[in-house]
Amino acid sequence: MTVIETNAKPTVEEMGHRLARLQAGMARAGYGAYVLADPSNVLWLTNFANYVHERPFILVVPVKGQPAFLVPRLELDHVEHRTIGAVDFVTYAEFPTVEGKRWNDRIAGLLPKGPGKIAVEATLPLMVANAVGDRTQITGLIDDIRAIKSDYELGRIAYACRLLSEAHDALLAMARPGLSQSEIDGTVGKTLFGALVTDDPNLNPFATSIHTMIQNADASHDPHNFSDLDMKLKEGGPNLSVFNALLNGYGAEIERTFFLGQVPEAARKPFDVMMEARQCVFEMTKPGAIMSDVDRASNDIFRKYRFEDAMRHRAGHGMGVTSHEGPFLAEGEEKEIRPGMVFTIEPGIYFPGLGGFRHSDTVMTTESGLVQLTRGPDTLEALTL
Amino acid sequence: MTVIETNAKPTVEEMGHRLARLQAGMARAGYGAYVLADPSNVLWLTNFANYVHERPFILVVPVKGQPAFLVPRLELDHVEHRTIGAVDFVTYAEFPTVEGKRWNDRIAGLLPKGPGKIAVEATLPLMVANAVGDRTQITGLIDDIRAIKSDYELGRIAYACRLLSEAHDALLAMARPGLSQSEIDGTVGKTLFGALVTDDPNLNPFATSIHTMIQNADASHDPHNFSDLDMKLKEGGPNLSVFNALLNGYGAEIERTFFLGQVPEAARKPFDVMMEARQCVFEMTKPGAIMSDVDRASNDIFRKYRFEDAMRHRAGHGMGVTSHEGPFLAEGEEKEIRPGMVFTIEPGIYFPGLGGFRHSDTVMTTESGLVQLTRGPDTLEALTL
Repeated sequence: MTVIETNAKPTVEEMGHRLARLQAGMARAGYGAYVLADPSNVLWLTNFANYVHERPFILVVPVKGQPAFLVPRLELDHVEHRTIGAVDFVTYAEFPTVEGKRWNDRIAGLLPKGPGKIAVEATLPLMVANAVGDRTQITGLIDDIRAIKSDYELGRIAYACRLLSEAHDALLAMARPGLSQSEIDGTVGKTLFGALVTDDPNLNPFATSIHTMIQNADASHDPHNFSDLDMKLKEGGPNLSVFNALLNGYGAEIERTFFLGQVPEAARKPFDVMMEARQCVFEMTKPGAIMSDVDRASNDIFRKYRFEDAMRHRAGHGMGVTSHEGPFLAEGEEKEIRPGMVFTIEPGIYFPGLGGFRHSDTVMTTESGLVQLTRGPDTLEALTL
Repeated sequence: MTVIETNAKPTVEEMGHRLARLQAGMARAGYGAYVLADPSNVLWLTNFANYVHERPFILVVPVKGQPAFLVPRLELDHVEHRTIGAVDFVTYAEFPTVEGKRWNDRIAGLLPKGPGKIAVEATLPLMVANAVGDRTQITGLIDDIRAIKSDYELGRIAYACRLLSEAHDALLAMARPGLSQSEIDGTVGKTLFGALVTDDPNLNPFATSIHTMIQNADASHDPHNFSDLDMKLKEGGPNLSVFNALLNGYGAEIERTFFLGQVPEAARKPFDVMMEARQCVFEMTKPGAIMSDVDRASNDIFRKYRFEDAMRHRAGHGMGVTSHEGPFLAEGEEKEIRPGMVFTIEPGIYFPGLGGFRHSDTVMTTESGLVQLTRGPDTLEALTL
């Protein structure tokens, strides 16, 4: 299958197709309505991305008919401007406000009568769940439906992956000892944002977030430590690139372990073991496989080499209207991989005093296997710069 | 009272004082523990700012003794690095992971035995509330305690307000028709960030977020519409500056309605009415006043001039370890203003086709009244540039 890159806005038909898939799933599960407040679920169903603050934005999807979108009066104009597809807008006055005009005074009127369960997200704020009442049932139904991307969505993600891969190539081309995080943001990050704006001057800023980060060997053992804004690449390595971005509503990720000038002897084995686990995940990530099994096989490779203490995270995560979401290539995720899913593949191992070893690529699954959407060098030779 | 500006990290004593105030409140209310997951509550009690993703970070505060901080194993190193004060760290393996190693397998062991209620946030994710069990009770206790700032916190906010006011002065000095959002970000926004990093190279990037935004008269009637990245200031007005920032862990806000070259005749009355409401809020925001009354008095001024349809939001919001939080100067917020609180004062009115009218300043309340922390010109004369 060939993915056709696109950066076009979703059509009304695309949005209608998403709603229809969700409502079909709700009908099968016997839900009368679905109450959604997670900004990524709202974005996926409406094309509207919240400026997230304390005022609730709540989408109520009935099993049949148009969703109602409950928003603060303050926000109505730009919510209407961004929304694509058939949605009824309902406003509330302010947060807080006087009784009778509050968001929770509006909820009951948006829910169907009758005995059906009301589906809710696991992350729904407790106050919203309480306002919905005692018919709620936590479900990951929308997550499971979002996990299967439409051809349009795959085209958006492919576009985001190409832009991010080009930015990553630019980093590798300029990488030298002393190159700092701020220089990278000012060149690579800025060029990427410029390309995005040039392609779509009307891009969605609340669905755009660019991270073109680095970690050197002093920091890369701690994968989410980005506290040093003056981080600089260092001679030797492992240095790590951490490129993760939400580009106008769709995510992408590419990361590499690379070396400058020379490869420390102690880094060779961890690099090779990481590559063995990565190869294993690439081979196993295809329709029919169980996600838990993929991560376990990768972890078994780390365990085989006695690297248990170096393990920190699962082999990969999903990607879509966020750059980081379920489903997960993780032990305990007992879900089947199906065509049209998008994952990162990024098994990693981490050694304080030596550094971190992880490549990440964004891939999609098709009927015939796996298509890699990000591109970059991956061998030790090609990554010794 | 004089505020002493500071950008220093909180001391162990400062953090201990916060915990003691919270635990005293919990003891009075009869709570055995408080389960906190809101990143701003976690930041306030630990000095750690989440990179927020699907893996839960949960702080369990017992009514006596040290809090337990449940974090993903992946994050432990930098969580420990940032945390200030006495906290026990408890990790879980991954999200998701196999039974017995999950975050929700750890929760019960962190809760006190016995019959006491477990306090929880209104925004607690439903899955966390369910894991805590049926002893939960929603309370805004921590919000009420956070609303009263320590002298140290007032000093941090004063520092943030000075930096943001200086950036805002720079905008007004360079304002001319055609000046674009990207030019402002590249000059004013960049200078502000540079000043912040110079003052503290070890600043907390996950607690730093700078918005130096503008809206011209075509957009300013829709106060949260920032969808046009190429927004440009225009001859006449009203143009609006929207400067809101979280600067290394503390918030500030300053906004102005301003004109370039000339003031359209139709803009004079709305500007004057906004100023009348603003004056009213400045006068009423002092200890002993009820927040609801302040907003009602301001809104009554708008209603007196028949501007009901132009009203979009409350007169102000709180500020602290976020740049946007409770308590609110809002009809329906039946809370008393007390010394040591920080608010924005920003009544506004909005007219499609004409534009928006709002100034915002960050102020603190003291025993003797109100201290304005942000500074900028405010009259029509001074704001016709």
